[in-house]
Amino acid sequence: MPELRRDPVVGRWVIISTERARRPSDFPVPRWQRKGGPCVFCGGQESRTPDEVWALRPDGSEPNRPGWLVRVVPNKFPALRIEGELERSGEGLFDRMNGVGAHEVVIESPEHDAVIERLPPSHLAEVLRAYRERMRDLAKDPRLEYVMVFKNHRDLAGASLEHTHSQLIATPIAPITVEEELAGALQHFRIKQRCIWCDIVRQERRDGVRVILEEGDFVALAPFAPRFPFETWILPMAHRSSFEDTPAGDFLSLAGLVSKILVGMTRHLDDPPYNFVLHSAPLRAAPLDHFHWHLEIIPKLTRVAGFEWGTGFFINPTPPEDAATYLRGEVPGGA
Amino acid sequence: MPELRRDPVVGRWVIISTERARRPSDFPVPRWQRKGGPCVFCGGQESRTPDEVWALRPDGSEPNRPGWLVRVVPNKFPALRIEGELERSGEGLFDRMNGVGAHEVVIESPEHDAVIERLPPSHLAEVLRAYRERMRDLAKDPRLEYVMVFKNHRDLAGASLEHTHSQLIATPIAPITVEEELAGALQHFRIKQRCIWCDIVRQERRDGVRVILEEGDFVALAPFAPRFPFETWILPMAHRSSFEDTPAGDFLSLAGLVSKILVGMTRHLDDPPYNFVLHSAPLRAAPLDHFHWHLEIIPKLTRVAGFEWGTGFFINPTPPEDAATYLRGEVPGGA
Repeated sequence: MPELRRDPVVGRWVIISTERARRPSDFPVPRWQRKGGPCVFCGGQESRTPDEVWALRPDGSEPNRPGWLVRVVPNKFPALRIEGELERSGEGLFDRMNGVGAHEVVIESPEHDAVIERLPPSHLAEVLRAYRERMRDLAKDPRLEYVMVFKNHRDLAGASLEHTHSQLIATPIAPITVEEELAGALQHFRIKQRCIWCDIVRQERRDGVRVILEEGDFVALAPFAPRFPFETWILPMAHRSSFEDTPAGDFLSLAGLVSKILVGMTRHLDDPPYNFVLHSAPLRAAPLDHFHWHLEIIPKLTRVAGFEWGTGFFINPTPPEDAATYLRGEVPGGA
Repeated sequence: MPELRRDPVVGRWVIISTERARRPSDFPVPRWQRKGGPCVFCGGQESRTPDEVWALRPDGSEPNRPGWLVRVVPNKFPALRIEGELERSGEGLFDRMNGVGAHEVVIESPEHDAVIERLPPSHLAEVLRAYRERMRDLAKDPRLEYVMVFKNHRDLAGASLEHTHSQLIATPIAPITVEEELAGALQHFRIKQRCIWCDIVRQERRDGVRVILEEGDFVALAPFAPRFPFETWILPMAHRSSFEDTPAGDFLSLAGLVSKILVGMTRHLDDPPYNFVLHSAPLRAAPLDHFHWHLEIIPKLTRVAGFEWGTGFFINPTPPEDAATYLRGEVPGGA
């Protein structure tokens, strides 16, 4: 059983996940080669994954058979497990609980060589809708507090399989990063009675220098204090705290914007490794006046080293105004 | 001029450092090969670095000449610059200041092929003393609030030069990571009137399962909630908040312990990339009852991916009790 442990000084939780490597010899370099034969995420290989929990099957085909466009399955080597109770306990100074949660894989296409940003926007829109559907479903489990949706693209960004996919991990406590955002945003709201991200969107659209592109009701911008070069945030222009509340009609323009930003990065930065992470309000939160969901896209061009780990301070060689200028020039339809 | 910028939501500062790469084509893979001829950190190449700010010269040789054992020079491509004033300013919602600070390189040996953990302990003790001397000197500059000492070993851990060295960056604000430690520790102290790290050291030495090794007045242990597999912390057993207050007579046993832990990691984990970071109290703080300096050694065996960036939650496949067992077996003199 995986275990959650809390650092007693800073309150940071870690997942001790014994489902994976644990001995020193278990830390291999990820293997990218298909070792002959199709990969487990490919169409036709459905029996080699755990049973699907959601799928888009335009032809009405049966579960766990070919015919799907987007398919969500539990991770075979989950960081957290859905079975069991939390059983919170202490050990002297220390706190722990069982690693209860969910860890799922969103297979974005049955085609092995598909690339997310080259999918038709209508297809990518269904990937985004899959996130929403899984978040809505997992919200029914009262043990779970949060769902983090993320994508690791290429091995340097942490991907261990080549076939295009994203993941979600549902945790029994809200992550510290989101707690910090909630706390900072609440402080702003208490003083100004305004959402800080709404303020940021207004200021950036007025200034223009860090806006990369707008599409429909969404905007992509280079944040003022980016940790990483070419870091890009996508937000709905209108206030909305939970990604689960995204209306079905919005996914197409959101997909168009995500796709164009990723195409721009791929072209301009030579197909870089990247992560994206979706920050939404905690599960079952009523709509929050002070939180605003956003998607953070982080190309991995620099190495995070001792200084960053030690301080939480990031050294970023590319001013976001320059990054926005470069990306605007490369983004299809960019200003 | 580099610039410090604050994220308005979570209060995280970043350094926009235009001294380094900024265009997309400027993100090369670090080059490890010496391109013919000696490297700039080698003995005899002193004229190719900025003038030294400290050196140990047992033979009394002149500055910026051969004859040194440990040498500290300003970084040629500094993340922060020592000249100028902070000039704090706002831009609507956003806050910035000039990137004033210091960025120095501690060259640990004149020999290109030296490896830190194979230096004689008396030599490594002088490297540690160099940290103390530089911290004491930089503390005289009232613009500076903090000195972070760190080491990046191998390119995967962020090193860009092979010749063994560590670095220090002095910042005009205390880093968020240290602020969080200070805040968590103060909360503990207010309730218990005890230092939380003193409590941790006592509990770990009583339990024994996560202690790796003790030497002199120092202990090395696998922390209860480690972010990374085989993460190791070294602390003085007696309470001390500032590394600058380390008595000269303590450096030899501290060096012995650091060296043995690094030798154990190299052997057991196949010479892994690692970082170490020194967490000490902010500069000029009077001795603090609630803070306890510590050195965090972090091998880089796993990739930090979207989940970790998105949540601040780390997934660690190796329970620290196992890590301590493995390292004890490999550490010279280990239990």
